[in-house]
Amino acid sequence: MNIKRQPSRRQGRAKRLDKKAHQSDFYPAAVKRRIPTTEICNEAELDRLEQHADWILKEVGIEFRGDPEAIELFKEAGATVKGERVRFDPGHAKALCSTAPSEFVMHGRDPRHSITVGDRSVAMTPGYGSPFVTDHEGGRRYATLADFQNFVKLTFLSPWLHHSGGTVCEPVDIPVNKRHLDMVYTHLRYSTKPFMGGVTAPHRAKDSIEMAKIVFGEAFMEDHCVIQGNINLNSPLVLDHVMSGSLKVYARANQGNFISPFILGGAMGPVTQPALIAQAHAETMAVIALTQLVRKGSPVIYGNFLTTLDFQTGAPTFGTPEANLGILALGQLSRRLKLPLRGIGHVTAAKVADGQAMQESSDSMMAAILAGSSIIFHATGWLEGGLTMGYEKFVMDLDRCGMMCKMLQGLEIDDNQLAKEAFLQAQPGENFLSVDHTLANFETVNYRSDLLGDTDSFEQWTEKGRLDAAQRAHRKWKEMLTRYQLPEMDPATDEALLDYVARKKDATEDQWY
Amino acid sequence: MNIKRQPSRRQGRAKRLDKKAHQSDFYPAAVKRRIPTTEICNEAELDRLEQHADWILKEVGIEFRGDPEAIELFKEAGATVKGERVRFDPGHAKALCSTAPSEFVMHGRDPRHSITVGDRSVAMTPGYGSPFVTDHEGGRRYATLADFQNFVKLTFLSPWLHHSGGTVCEPVDIPVNKRHLDMVYTHLRYSTKPFMGGVTAPHRAKDSIEMAKIVFGEAFMEDHCVIQGNINLNSPLVLDHVMSGSLKVYARANQGNFISPFILGGAMGPVTQPALIAQAHAETMAVIALTQLVRKGSPVIYGNFLTTLDFQTGAPTFGTPEANLGILALGQLSRRLKLPLRGIGHVTAAKVADGQAMQESSDSMMAAILAGSSIIFHATGWLEGGLTMGYEKFVMDLDRCGMMCKMLQGLEIDDNQLAKEAFLQAQPGENFLSVDHTLANFETVNYRSDLLGDTDSFEQWTEKGRLDAAQRAHRKWKEMLTRYQLPEMDPATDEALLDYVARKKDATEDQWY
Repeated sequence: MNIKRQPSRRQGRAKRLDKKAHQSDFYPAAVKRRIPTTEICNEAELDRLEQHADWILKEVGIEFRGDPEAIELFKEAGATVKGERVRFDPGHAKALCSTAPSEFVMHGRDPRHSITVGDRSVAMTPGYGSPFVTDHEGGRRYATLADFQNFVKLTFLSPWLHHSGGTVCEPVDIPVNKRHLDMVYTHLRYSTKPFMGGVTAPHRAKDSIEMAKIVFGEAFMEDHCVIQGNINLNSPLVLDHVMSGSLKVYARANQGNFISPFILGGAMGPVTQPALIAQAHAETMAVIALTQLVRKGSPVIYGNFLTTLDFQTGAPTFGTPEANLGILALGQLSRRLKLPLRGIGHVTAAKVADGQAMQESSDSMMAAILAGSSIIFHATGWLEGGLTMGYEKFVMDLDRCGMMCKMLQGLEIDDNQLAKEAFLQAQPGENFLSVDHTLANFETVNYRSDLLGDTDSFEQWTEKGRLDAAQRAHRKWKEMLTRYQLPEMDPATDEALLDYVARKKDATEDQWY
Repeated sequence: MNIKRQPSRRQGRAKRLDKKAHQSDFYPAAVKRRIPTTEICNEAELDRLEQHADWILKEVGIEFRGDPEAIELFKEAGATVKGERVRFDPGHAKALCSTAPSEFVMHGRDPRHSITVGDRSVAMTPGYGSPFVTDHEGGRRYATLADFQNFVKLTFLSPWLHHSGGTVCEPVDIPVNKRHLDMVYTHLRYSTKPFMGGVTAPHRAKDSIEMAKIVFGEAFMEDHCVIQGNINLNSPLVLDHVMSGSLKVYARANQGNFISPFILGGAMGPVTQPALIAQAHAETMAVIALTQLVRKGSPVIYGNFLTTLDFQTGAPTFGTPEANLGILALGQLSRRLKLPLRGIGHVTAAKVADGQAMQESSDSMMAAILAGSSIIFHATGWLEGGLTMGYEKFVMDLDRCGMMCKMLQGLEIDDNQLAKEAFLQAQPGENFLSVDHTLANFETVNYRSDLLGDTDSFEQWTEKGRLDAAQRAHRKWKEMLTRYQLPEMDPATDEALLDYVARKKDATEDQWY
């Protein structure tokens, strides 16, 4: 099937389109979902999964290790406590979750960047936690603060990422005990989107909140969420004191907590999805319950990261059909709790931004979308099971995020979209390229891919050097960084932030582990 | 996040798993869908789309060019005919479609390869129609009969392709007027799966059916579908006499017709999806009506291939959010007609099997799955908007087809899957690798990717030569071809087929255009 190209007329349009593309980069808003979620389980199946989660919480229970305060809170709430093991009667954990809001706003430093979490909103955030970065020139290497800053800049520039993320990559050149200061400063200074603070020690969570107060003000933060902690369980069925300690800091300050079990089926949970779904649901409910016992009504997000193992190598696999089915079911269970859902986006085990990377990533992100996620982690950059943030992968994923934002908007069926006049103008066998309706709509009607959707002919593509998507991506992120401009900040605020960072850094010795 | 590897024990299992993998290759069956379709439009929106299709058929109509018999059939059926333009009163075209079966069997030469079309069945077929092929060694070149044979062999070998396809690639080394003979012979002799015959001239459709009769017998074919024609419209709103002539041959013989508009929004139809959906629905209904006027009850499949244009280059784009939304809506409209749906699978504009190729392909295939397709064309190999069949892409797509077949099966929630005993055996904080439930289930519970899902560590992957997915795919298809064995056929049947081909080839001069 060969399509005739219409070069002369098209080129004039192409220039106009190019101009438009950059205008939209600056002020995005979280997308409103207009497409249905995928209801993979029927009501009876969901009942059974909920009952199984309740069975786990009653018969096995969950351990809160090294945190006597958490244990005390659960005891007071009526849970059955034995040592560090907490058991719940059926329905109890769910009831404790019910005080969490089903919708709230994550405020950005620029209010135009504030996002709603819950309802039908969908927001996306970059990858989280990689110790390595890679790009086509520099290869794979330990991440530095400069890389961290680059990814925050790329996130700020993109209309398809609505949240600046947290530990976008580990700035390994900064001492372990001081990284959070530089990361929080970078999010606050280099971006104006919502962001996550430190969770690797409760006092680092406190530093993060103190720095946010310098920018947002203590009074505002009393009832507005401007920062969040990403709380991962030590699955199966354990929360350690580092995580519970950080959780308590964010909850007490009425700031947000993402509660996310990370479970590899067959290692940190059973090998079968229904068991994993119930386990994840049990773990999430129990930890969300803790946030509400610390402070009723504090904002919280129902997270999940279920995935599978390759039993030949013992390594995790991503975007697999089993994991994606599990994620869809967890979406349904989150709706039974009426809590906003956190999904995982473009995740993959691939080492490079190749066909494997984009297939696994596409499938995983699609599951997050269809599951009804309100905010999606790891939407850009993730390679190698999260060990590496790829610069090329980052901008390839960005483009796919744009496609997903478009898809979420669904179909709009109105007179203009039905185009009666076009059918009367172009008769059977005639083409629609020049009809009025096409001319009036073609510039705005379709998402315009700026990277993945290459449509050059084989000959044009050969002339341009036969670049695959990853090679084109290398040019793309470099070009984006040249466009970055530091957003404005009141100099006194900036000084206060820098002063806080300097004081804290000076107060302790560097720690490298 | 680093996963501990358990090499010694795992390696023993790996060997057992490898043995199993090849056993499943031979006898697949179409998959039964156990996951829901995505209902992108509500009932009122579907009503409006149907009404718009009816408006198009009444106010604009559709042309059947160069086929007075078709015109006469429509006149007799009560349509309004003026020259070659046929117009239908609202509801008339839909009513004419109602005699087509909502479910039927496509019989394979080996009955174990027969597939149900309709109900909740999902079958997949390789790419169709590419004049070029490409592979990592030979580069991009015109396709030959040897390539055609290779792809039929690869399709035969795969448990994830349930149908041998039609013009899997164009055997350009064979004269245009004789290709269909070699292609039909190849499908019949090299495979035992259902297949498509020639449609490039009515007498070539007849040859295809005659050859099928040699294998299946005339009596059997009177009420069993063993071969199908792929009927594409000349959108907008035209069916030419070559296509209608071939359609009539298949319908009269009670064999199958795939009815598929191929519409690029903005060129062969309006630029907005709702208009395209209505147009495609109108076109499909009108042509399906013709099959039923030729022979009531003859088997037919509601096809579609809607996609978008890049208005900068004038080239088609694939797997785009707009196209995928349109496809989901067409799935709903096909269910209103109670007809089996044909979707399009792993399609892309990419020139190589890179990240673009797999992202676009993954999205397009996912739309076909979620739309409720009963049979999916172009499930493997497609590159460059269908101009090229890629050997590497073919086997990468195969692996993704396997994943989709697994996903279609949904979740099974029973006592074994809920794994109570596993939770009692592995307590909080302990791992599940060695619990009885894991050992009893790990070999069968997850789809095992043999190509895309590489999980080697970065170090292992580096040692093995840093192969990306496409490079691994090159090894894979070559290895597969070495495993191919010609299925048995009664020598007299084979001789009769070869004799038919030879006689037909001798009877006419070669034509190269």
